[in-house]
Amino acid sequence: MLEDLLSRLDRLKEFLTIKPLYYDLNTNEFVWIDTRQLPWNEVYIRTKDYNRVARAIKDMEIRGAPAIGVTAAFGLTLAAVHSKAKRAEELMNEIKEAYGVLAATRPTAYNLFWALDRTWRAAQRAFEVENDADAIREAVLREAFTIYVEDVENNVNMGRNGAKLIDNGDRIVTHCNTGSLATAGFGTALGVIRYAWHEGKSIKVYADETRPLLQGARLTVWELKKDGIPVTLIVDGASGLLFRRGMADLAIVGADRITLSGHVANKIGTYNLALAANANGKEFYVAAPTSTIQPVVGEDSIVIEERSPDEVKTVLGRLTITVDDVEAWNPAFDITPPELVSGIITEKGVARRPYEKTLKEIIGLTE
Amino acid sequence: MLEDLLSRLDRLKEFLTIKPLYYDLNTNEFVWIDTRQLPWNEVYIRTKDYNRVARAIKDMEIRGAPAIGVTAAFGLTLAAVHSKAKRAEELMNEIKEAYGVLAATRPTAYNLFWALDRTWRAAQRAFEVENDADAIREAVLREAFTIYVEDVENNVNMGRNGAKLIDNGDRIVTHCNTGSLATAGFGTALGVIRYAWHEGKSIKVYADETRPLLQGARLTVWELKKDGIPVTLIVDGASGLLFRRGMADLAIVGADRITLSGHVANKIGTYNLALAANANGKEFYVAAPTSTIQPVVGEDSIVIEERSPDEVKTVLGRLTITVDDVEAWNPAFDITPPELVSGIITEKGVARRPYEKTLKEIIGLTE
Repeated sequence: MLEDLLSRLDRLKEFLTIKPLYYDLNTNEFVWIDTRQLPWNEVYIRTKDYNRVARAIKDMEIRGAPAIGVTAAFGLTLAAVHSKAKRAEELMNEIKEAYGVLAATRPTAYNLFWALDRTWRAAQRAFEVENDADAIREAVLREAFTIYVEDVENNVNMGRNGAKLIDNGDRIVTHCNTGSLATAGFGTALGVIRYAWHEGKSIKVYADETRPLLQGARLTVWELKKDGIPVTLIVDGASGLLFRRGMADLAIVGADRITLSGHVANKIGTYNLALAANANGKEFYVAAPTSTIQPVVGEDSIVIEERSPDEVKTVLGRLTITVDDVEAWNPAFDITPPELVSGIITEKGVARRPYEKTLKEIIGLTE
Repeated sequence: MLEDLLSRLDRLKEFLTIKPLYYDLNTNEFVWIDTRQLPWNEVYIRTKDYNRVARAIKDMEIRGAPAIGVTAAFGLTLAAVHSKAKRAEELMNEIKEAYGVLAATRPTAYNLFWALDRTWRAAQRAFEVENDADAIREAVLREAFTIYVEDVENNVNMGRNGAKLIDNGDRIVTHCNTGSLATAGFGTALGVIRYAWHEGKSIKVYADETRPLLQGARLTVWELKKDGIPVTLIVDGASGLLFRRGMADLAIVGADRITLSGHVANKIGTYNLALAANANGKEFYVAAPTSTIQPVVGEDSIVIEERSPDEVKTVLGRLTITVDDVEAWNPAFDITPPELVSGIITEKGVARRPYEKTLKEIIGLTE
């Protein structure tokens, strides 16, 4: 029943150099690489239990907004497929419960709620039309698989759109990890970089290490090295000097949530990077699928997740770097205002200021 | 012979809660706390060997521009005092050799060269006037001790001058460590913060952790905790959001070198913090003794030390955080341009824009 989706995926296989998460159709298990253990160990985990999937999101074994969305959809799939429910109503209640568990994992990534809603609506349609448990199971799996395949397609399209903004010889700064390990595959900002490389452009990447969880040092460097794309690691505080000394030409980052006004929530430190690029007259781009766009204006609706102070007081829980009883503030994301964003690269094209107009056009919202 | 200096020091003892480095007049040894081992171990090291002192600067057992200057002056003292030379000329040659070794340790801190030159000139005066080895030894010790005592006095005066800029209730962001552990005692930017606290102002500090060597997390937090001043640790990338959310009122940092145009070389990440404060309409102050000021204009003469990539690829050599063979760029300092600097707090007063005029006045340079 998924042949059409499998063949769409097959057409993209040259772009899928790393497969960070997938649904195993033979065993009905969800499978993912534990990104917390990278770059030291490449450990894949499999489960039939949506609670285990929720924990993987909460504990950041899986992270990156698009990856979180796809994973949540497959979490609902596991709940549906492995439920013992015979009656459609009973199954819908179980799926709804799984929805609640998965939605409570992380508050900032908009794709999480978008993917859960979309999969839930597919279940509801099947329930209303067929009122049959197996039909609902099939609908949920199909919707999650569609979200998965579309994410890869979107990333490749985003890469193609964004690569037009990258010139041969460009030196690009990026923050956090927005690659295969943050999506269903290929990546958002890193997808743009990969696409430019795929086109034969000679580029070089500066990767912010991205404290506290070091996704840049651990994941972005690991991915770029695998693809052979030149990369230099820097501490987050070095981006200012990098631009000031004329050593970098532009910055590209991903996003966890974008509002119609062009306010961008992304990994803590993104705003500082945007300031560094802008202060030195360089472009600062955001690459994200349209599923990241929340149809509201302004930044007030953006909930910023605050995580445990221990992430700041230690390095990955392995090394304590400060005195025991000090307070630490650990917001996982920050907000970059639209005036610092040169363009928002999506699978449907590149939006430019004024974003309220262009983003509405891109997501097909009419006044 | 040093009674006058010892009594000046005694008058400041309420401000010397931590004694990070000093010259032991009983044993003629230089003594310092190894800041690399903080906050885990409080280890004091003693030596009679100026080469060991040079290594302590190079390896950053002692760091912070004023501390480096004072230490270098005492390094020359050790060379003079423990030299076997009987003839004045012979002794001068040995002091000159020590000068070369100490000057080659770190290139950016202007105080290093300032303190070495000043101590060297004292030796030369004694040589020219008395042509006697012991008179030279005495002159060198006295000059180094004077630099030491003046540094503490300057810091307290800087604190008094700077504290006028801090209001009751202010929440202050700082970067790196500019406290007792970066000076002969009390501190520069942290001296200002301490002085405001000493005046009874209710303040709160946000400390940037300051990658790669984490001087904020390890040293600033440790010092502020000892003094009971409220402190919250943040990652370097969080300062933007902190200001954007209205959670901080101003920033104060130290400096390794300031030129007459108001260009400020300071720990990598300072420029990003300055951008974050300025973008949100908040003041960004620099506190440094006038010995930090290099009497040239512009930023071209500022050499930025590049340190080993391993400092970025690991956390303090204890934990590797990225793939083995990746490149890393590790500039120890960056440059903040004058338009981002609200004021430069010195022991002689606060300079405001245009700095070329006010800094010249403060250091007594006339056209």
